[in-house]
Amino acid sequence: MIKEAIYHRPKDNFAYAYDKETLHIRLRSKKGDLTKVSLIYGDPYEWNDEGWKNSKKTMTLEGTDELFDIWFVEVKPKYKRMRYGFEIKSNENFLIYGEDGFIEKDPKNAHFYFCFPFLNENDVFNAPAWVKDTIWYQIFPERFANGNPLLNPKNTIPWGSTEPQFDTFFGGDLEGIINNIGHLTELGVNGIYLTPIFKAKSNHKYDTIDYMEIDPQFGDKKTFKKLIEVCHENNIRVMLDAVFNHSGFYFEPFQHVLEYQEKSKYRDWFHLRDIKVKALPEANYDTFAFTHLMPKLNTENEELKKYLLEVGKYWVEEFDIDGWRLDVANEVDHQFWRDFRKTVKSVKPDAYILGEVWHDSMPWLQGDQFDAVMNYPFTQAVVEYIAKDEINSEVFKHKLIKLLSNYPKNVNEYNFNLLGSHDTPRILTLCQDNKDKLKLLFLLQFSFIGSPCIYYGDEIGLTGEGDPSCRKCMVWDKDAQDTDLFTFLKKLIDLRKRYSAFGANGQFEVIESAKETNHIMYSKKTVEEQIIITINNSNSALKVHLPFDISKNESMNLWDNKPQKISEIEIEPLSFSIIKL
Amino acid sequence: MIKEAIYHRPKDNFAYAYDKETLHIRLRSKKGDLTKVSLIYGDPYEWNDEGWKNSKKTMTLEGTDELFDIWFVEVKPKYKRMRYGFEIKSNENFLIYGEDGFIEKDPKNAHFYFCFPFLNENDVFNAPAWVKDTIWYQIFPERFANGNPLLNPKNTIPWGSTEPQFDTFFGGDLEGIINNIGHLTELGVNGIYLTPIFKAKSNHKYDTIDYMEIDPQFGDKKTFKKLIEVCHENNIRVMLDAVFNHSGFYFEPFQHVLEYQEKSKYRDWFHLRDIKVKALPEANYDTFAFTHLMPKLNTENEELKKYLLEVGKYWVEEFDIDGWRLDVANEVDHQFWRDFRKTVKSVKPDAYILGEVWHDSMPWLQGDQFDAVMNYPFTQAVVEYIAKDEINSEVFKHKLIKLLSNYPKNVNEYNFNLLGSHDTPRILTLCQDNKDKLKLLFLLQFSFIGSPCIYYGDEIGLTGEGDPSCRKCMVWDKDAQDTDLFTFLKKLIDLRKRYSAFGANGQFEVIESAKETNHIMYSKKTVEEQIIITINNSNSALKVHLPFDISKNESMNLWDNKPQKISEIEIEPLSFSIIKL
Repeated sequence: MIKEAIYHRPKDNFAYAYDKETLHIRLRSKKGDLTKVSLIYGDPYEWNDEGWKNSKKTMTLEGTDELFDIWFVEVKPKYKRMRYGFEIKSNENFLIYGEDGFIEKDPKNAHFYFCFPFLNENDVFNAPAWVKDTIWYQIFPERFANGNPLLNPKNTIPWGSTEPQFDTFFGGDLEGIINNIGHLTELGVNGIYLTPIFKAKSNHKYDTIDYMEIDPQFGDKKTFKKLIEVCHENNIRVMLDAVFNHSGFYFEPFQHVLEYQEKSKYRDWFHLRDIKVKALPEANYDTFAFTHLMPKLNTENEELKKYLLEVGKYWVEEFDIDGWRLDVANEVDHQFWRDFRKTVKSVKPDAYILGEVWHDSMPWLQGDQFDAVMNYPFTQAVVEYIAKDEINSEVFKHKLIKLLSNYPKNVNEYNFNLLGSHDTPRILTLCQDNKDKLKLLFLLQFSFIGSPCIYYGDEIGLTGEGDPSCRKCMVWDKDAQDTDLFTFLKKLIDLRKRYSAFGANGQFEVIESAKETNHIMYSKKTVEEQIIITINNSNSALKVHLPFDISKNESMNLWDNKPQKISEIEIEPLSFSIIKL
Repeated sequence: MIKEAIYHRPKDNFAYAYDKETLHIRLRSKKGDLTKVSLIYGDPYEWNDEGWKNSKKTMTLEGTDELFDIWFVEVKPKYKRMRYGFEIKSNENFLIYGEDGFIEKDPKNAHFYFCFPFLNENDVFNAPAWVKDTIWYQIFPERFANGNPLLNPKNTIPWGSTEPQFDTFFGGDLEGIINNIGHLTELGVNGIYLTPIFKAKSNHKYDTIDYMEIDPQFGDKKTFKKLIEVCHENNIRVMLDAVFNHSGFYFEPFQHVLEYQEKSKYRDWFHLRDIKVKALPEANYDTFAFTHLMPKLNTENEELKKYLLEVGKYWVEEFDIDGWRLDVANEVDHQFWRDFRKTVKSVKPDAYILGEVWHDSMPWLQGDQFDAVMNYPFTQAVVEYIAKDEINSEVFKHKLIKLLSNYPKNVNEYNFNLLGSHDTPRILTLCQDNKDKLKLLFLLQFSFIGSPCIYYGDEIGLTGEGDPSCRKCMVWDKDAQDTDLFTFLKKLIDLRKRYSAFGANGQFEVIESAKETNHIMYSKKTVEEQIIITINNSNSALKVHLPFDISKNESMNLWDNKPQKISEIEIEPLSFSIIKL
């Protein structure tokens, strides 16, 4: 037994409240090392000199990644509190594992065990339920549609007339979005995420000048109100982008600092390094990355904090927006986000709070800060497997297991799964324009746990390398759109809406994967239904056997809507199968 | 190389801010497996297509416990943010380890690495500096001294006339404490922790009736004000006990519920399970343990929360107390403690917030909740090694290493180290009345990182098994006091105050330990000084060699104040040596 590989520490993804009465417990061990793991648990106060009135429950193997087995069990302790440990068996050994380490027989005192002191409802991770049923669509307003040419900034060039450069303006605006709501409803979208719309200098608007105003290029508050109304009438929720890590260079308080220097009352709103503040040749203040045009905000300053929290509240209260996406969320202090959550939820308890964090995000997903993060580790895994063929289906499976077991299950159900954004190359381009590959990616994304987001234009075949090429103008000429992709995605969205198991509520389990064939078969399951999806990511046809006796059931191929009577299935190269058992 | 034993996850004790510019990074690996570990780190934004401008720093072996080596390094990233990974070498292998796992050569993208996104000062663990220099003394007021017999409750029996039972009253009170401040100052104490003093029914007062009143048995607010004044004049800080997990049965709101049942406006202040609330034969509401006399408070109820936060503020604002010890702190929700911290620190930024948590407390020690916890895992380790001879010095060393590496270093510096309390048997009794053992324990406690606390009477030899015997009356008759113990402890306290390395600031490192001899030698070190302490926990005399060339230095034996000229030392059975290099 490799004791050193065994890991458990209460909280995070290893011991957490799934709901107000259920605890989830996980244990990690070396792959293949243990033959059986059981949870021993009991009330902390039922321990006395005669012993401990405890229970035992066998843990199931939740999954296996490259190195580890993950064991899982669910318990509902009667008094919402428990001490617990693990009985672990390998072929040669039997040990009990607790906070104090490993022993061979029952410990003499309760402190040997791990403790989940009390399940307080307040601490349960609690994201808005509607997110599970949401199909997101990310819009980069400058490039989606130009609805009102009168608002065009100077230097606006004709829509789509050229590849965008860093400083190109095409005149996209809010009316453009309103005019094209039909495109979204037809596809089945019911949530839009707008990159920043507040007054700013650049075309991307991540360099805010005024957090309380709509950028005049995009429209005004009246138009924005209309946008929200139209969206809500069409059952589309709206999420805005909050850029609180940094302001723009032309944010009035920063200009005040530059002008009045040591006399400015706004000095403490930023992280200044010297008495005399200067932007060039090198900024002597903290910035986003190394961009002097984006001075980092000091969110620890109470006045600035009050102002930003007011911003967070204002757009929810006055415009009834449904969520905030938080830019560079990982570089802002946790205390700020805790207060931000409280403030926003105080005016709209089911607002969605989504953080931009590209890496392991456990510290932000404890229930006190974000409802979800942009799931870029998911993006990376699917891109490596399908788009780039850099990893095979076996390695891909390991990455998914690691990803899912890295967070509590209730966190995974709300995560924001994307194939790309304004910050990455276009997904079709990453597929080297192979549409079959893109379809497989869409299928993976839309059948995964969490809520999927489409980056505007991916549904009609937009291409482009990284910024600025991934920010091309949306194509509205039907003849120039890839309607085959659109129809495919529409059908997927429809499936997700019709079958609960397909979506966020369906428990995900890999059934098989193989290096040689490069296919993966996985199950999505609720109490009521089970769907088996097989992806053939190879250039050869695939024959697989569904390991279920389906002859007795009325199984269906959900894609062609035909009954499935045999468990043998054949899948074309770069194609898939979706069977409902 | 046992890859499965290698562990790192940003935050907690593995990657944390030590101060506003310093990050500490730890890595865990199988004991003896790796020959060299280096941190590779750089700015997240200095990554581009040509590669990454990173630095490398060798990590040191911080310690080794039963199973693991703990590697440590300190870095000050220029822009307060970093991506990082580890170069790990064993005899056969060389690998790079990051968030994505293990690879053999430089990763192709920045996301492979771990991330510490930004060091925000607000998130740095920040306990009050004075705690490091504090010698605590825990007083159980009913048993410390009876200063005003007029306040004696009915049924009070003569001081110390018998072994206490669960319901005995001896009449200890606040005036008793005031009258005996001299005892504390003579010993060198500069902080007292009082178990609850608010109006309650029992002798221990953990069953609060009124959080805004002093128990009449103990005195009134005027007397309490005087107590604080006298303490502050004598440079003694005062910490009160906040019992917010549960109230007493006779707390007015709970009585209101019992009387008015479904009509009571206080129903939501508790966790009730049925419409008709009853206490007997079995309580149908949540309680502390299974005690119907202590109904658990619903700290998620906004009104109750407001009331309790007001309590937390009131005694600080009105009486200038210096800290709160939080009873059963682990069973109250984290959100409550976050707000409690904010409230208390808003009126006294350097108030000390100490949680009662007996197990691994990392979730409460992230900077947003407590300044420290009662370090019972320390208690258990020293009791098992010295008092009970259950583990040898080698196992003890492993426990200390595990304990220290389980928390950030800045957390360890403020932890509350105790040998016992009103909840455990008396330490002298655990030593089977062996005073030499107790002296070794005092030495360990007073030379450890953190702040030590004496349980009243331990300094003059009080004995007793667990509650209620560990709550005997303090002995004031000098002839009946163990003055040898008192003098010993006084000398230790004096050493701790005179030598910074002896106390909370001294870095702790085990130099040697051996099963056969059962001794342990450790170093306490600051930039200015180094002290070597050797404990001989055996019945044989010990000869050891200090592994330092001390002939050139003016080394001193701090206990007998004589120069130490040779590195060979002899230590009597159950004795010790304290050498300043």
